[in-house]
Amino acid sequence: MKRREFVVSGLALMAPPLGVQALVFDVFGTVVDWRGSIIREGESLNRARGWKIDWAAFADKWRAGYGPSMDKVRRGELPWKRIDELHRMVLDRLLDEFGLASLREAEKDHLNRMWHRLHGWPDAVAGLTRLKKKFVIATLSNGNVSLLTNMARFAGLPWDCVLSAELMRHYKPDPECYLGAADLLGLKPGEVMMVAAHAGDLRAAAKAGLRTAFVERPLEYGPGRKADSPPAGVDYKAKDFLELASLLGA
Amino acid sequence: MKRREFVVSGLALMAPPLGVQALVFDVFGTVVDWRGSIIREGESLNRARGWKIDWAAFADKWRAGYGPSMDKVRRGELPWKRIDELHRMVLDRLLDEFGLASLREAEKDHLNRMWHRLHGWPDAVAGLTRLKKKFVIATLSNGNVSLLTNMARFAGLPWDCVLSAELMRHYKPDPECYLGAADLLGLKPGEVMMVAAHAGDLRAAAKAGLRTAFVERPLEYGPGRKADSPPAGVDYKAKDFLELASLLGA
Repeated sequence: MKRREFVVSGLALMAPPLGVQALVFDVFGTVVDWRGSIIREGESLNRARGWKIDWAAFADKWRAGYGPSMDKVRRGELPWKRIDELHRMVLDRLLDEFGLASLREAEKDHLNRMWHRLHGWPDAVAGLTRLKKKFVIATLSNGNVSLLTNMARFAGLPWDCVLSAELMRHYKPDPECYLGAADLLGLKPGEVMMVAAHAGDLRAAAKAGLRTAFVERPLEYGPGRKADSPPAGVDYKAKDFLELASLLGA
Repeated sequence: MKRREFVVSGLALMAPPLGVQALVFDVFGTVVDWRGSIIREGESLNRARGWKIDWAAFADKWRAGYGPSMDKVRRGELPWKRIDELHRMVLDRLLDEFGLASLREAEKDHLNRMWHRLHGWPDAVAGLTRLKKKFVIATLSNGNVSLLTNMARFAGLPWDCVLSAELMRHYKPDPECYLGAADLLGLKPGEVMMVAAHAGDLRAAAKAGLRTAFVERPLEYGPGRKADSPPAGVDYKAKDFLELASLLGA
């Protein structure tokens, strides 16, 4: 597929949306602030329970354990697992490390569901609400369906439908995810645009024939740590969902 | 599982919701008025095109062809097909019968997507909006994901997520549908309640371990034709979604 020239941020207000009918969104980091949300909920636990956990370190290690867990599934060392289960495997190791191994099972489960209780970036709800007027908007996340559904209720995210790697039994960036999402939406890959703050996700989406939009999330990994840059050949680039809505005429 | 006694309509305002966390809804006939919607869109086509089609007869025959088409898939005479494809198979026969075989392909496709443009019963949006405050609300329909997603946008149905037979590759009333929906919601079957205007759907859901609510839709098949009655052992019975919300304390 011929890729469109990179559109300079802010200079493409009148650009047509390239025949795109649906936008599918990466969620962790792109729509919601996983790190800030875990830190805030964790710090309120510190206050309530008298703990002294470094929740920034906890969040970073939790997130860092997630890619290698998926790789174990990809290599066949583990059977298919939803992200809730992968999060729990990593959590169980961290609870030992952070001195929380004595928590009751219900407390561990509640802690694991922090990922169901993540807050959107400040522009997320307003931006999605604008985009939804013009496009079908759906998740396309490695998060499982119930995680994404509960998060949508918690954070007020107005999805038209919840699509997940769980439905394809392939995690992103496997091509089955992107092609499966287009198929479920009844669209050709080129009629779907992947929106993400991560270059690898967008590269894989483009390779599968989807259109791509990069959104900057400079604080995803915390202040002072570098966020991802847009990959070459991305169709749109925006500093947040409100700018993306303007670029797409929504 | 021990089934709860039948709750007399209107007398159970204080009844607890039995541990139910999510409601899954049959859609065609229960949430949306497929017959009235097809007749109304068809009659506006009659006016615009000078046709004299009997759209009530057309709608009834279209709907009647759908069960036998699913049975062909169940028996293995056809490979898996989404409902859009089954609707189209039936439509192609009806276009011959009703003298519309000369329509262009784009017109036939647009006609087939009438099922994406169905209107909710008058209580549907208000009732779902109330129920959503207390429960996760999802579709559980034989309609495919894109059909249900487009319909939600068209009719303003505020689903938390769109679940479909397409995701399980089994049509209702196969047990895989009900069990698969509970699994995707991360719930036990008994934590999910099936809401439908059809006894067969509710009997199959109960057999799979779900809770059940029957909603009356006396006009589903048109005036003068009998609608379905609640099956024995149903947990709740309501005359519409607003009464169901009251019965469930939502």
